[in-house]
Amino acid sequence: AIFAAITARLADGPLAGRHLLITSGPTHEPIDPVRYIANRSSGAQGTAIARAAVRAGAQVTFVTGPADVPPPEGVTLVRVETARQMLDAVEAALPADAAVFAAAVADWRVLSEAGRKMKKQDGALPQLELAENPDILATVSQKTEGRPGLVVGFAAETHDVLDNARAKRLRKGCDWIVANDVSEGTGIMGGTENAVTLVTSEGEESWPRASKDVVAEQLIDRIAEVLA
Amino acid sequence: AIFAAITARLADGPLAGRHLLITSGPTHEPIDPVRYIANRSSGAQGTAIARAAVRAGAQVTFVTGPADVPPPEGVTLVRVETARQMLDAVEAALPADAAVFAAAVADWRVLSEAGRKMKKQDGALPQLELAENPDILATVSQKTEGRPGLVVGFAAETHDVLDNARAKRLRKGCDWIVANDVSEGTGIMGGTENAVTLVTSEGEESWPRASKDVVAEQLIDRIAEVLA
Repeated sequence: AIFAAITARLADGPLAGRHLLITSGPTHEPIDPVRYIANRSSGAQGTAIARAAVRAGAQVTFVTGPADVPPPEGVTLVRVETARQMLDAVEAALPADAAVFAAAVADWRVLSEAGRKMKKQDGALPQLELAENPDILATVSQKTEGRPGLVVGFAAETHDVLDNARAKRLRKGCDWIVANDVSEGTGIMGGTENAVTLVTSEGEESWPRASKDVVAEQLIDRIAEVLA
Repeated sequence: AIFAAITARLADGPLAGRHLLITSGPTHEPIDPVRYIANRSSGAQGTAIARAAVRAGAQVTFVTGPADVPPPEGVTLVRVETARQMLDAVEAALPADAAVFAAAVADWRVLSEAGRKMKKQDGALPQLELAENPDILATVSQKTEGRPGLVVGFAAETHDVLDNARAKRLRKGCDWIVANDVSEGTGIMGGTENAVTLVTSEGEESWPRASKDVVAEQLIDRIAEVLA
């Protein structure tokens, strides 16, 4: 009876019958079997958005890199490590009514991953040659077929936050950018709160600093309005 | 009464009155405010060793990088991020009767950490120039004053495990090396079990594969024998 009640509530939610694709967490790009390049991302904001989407009745595919926080319940969970794996998982999860790309995807990977642990005594210092990773947000935003109706990107910046976010929205071709300042003084990276500005084609809205759960609810409310 | 009983038990342990310095976890070496180079290390083996040392009555200083597993109870906890911070914390924790360096310290750091987030559209691919980190195990092993009576290093290898471990013991000047094979098929990295070979001046002992807790107990038993 309890289960039925919950199911009924979800089926009534503003996102009932909608499929949301949400990415979260960092990616890890291997250097050799024991070393990797990573982004700082706890996965807390992406996980909160997925939880809010589930509460709103959506069917959620949650593609996550190695995050600090446990994944949400009630989602189709896809765990990945690298940016390339994340793109594959995203492509496999389409079509979706909306896509929220909250993951901190590595822009670069190491060009030639070593199959064996690199040794210090091998001689000279290694130089890591980097190659550009696929751009998941741009790839999905610029699809001519099968593009989600609403594509939301994130911009974590340490300077010129709004200018960078506006330029990113146009460059990638996504509909919205959720911009935030992750510079050291803010305590946002790895913290429980967030202060974001939503950048759309119509302008910007700065939301008051709040818990990542509250920010997630607000974003899901806005997505539900657009999809309604 | 319960607290007194526990204290009494600890005071009776084979390492009562001894100070053990134990390092654990990976180090993170910043590239810019949002990116870093890391080692794969859950911190599970180092944490298990610290727990075993506490149970054996030792006073434990536990210097840990950003590990996946929570730190043990009953230790003096020092959290660090980079290899250089770990060396500083180790130096500050001396003198010690024994030191166990179970951390997976980054051999290299990025030469010029960027103060701002590097942008993809800045143009050419960034090349990461690396600089060698201080060698904590060698630094402490080769101290002429204030060297711990017993210095134990770890060698996580993906090939030629024993040859690499023997050479490492001589090169660093430590007393023992705990060697293990962390190549992919073993499931040791990030797993709950370990299979190690203890390399000393007298030769090698391979211990049967067991939980990291059992491996920790065995190592602490051996350390207690030496310090007795």
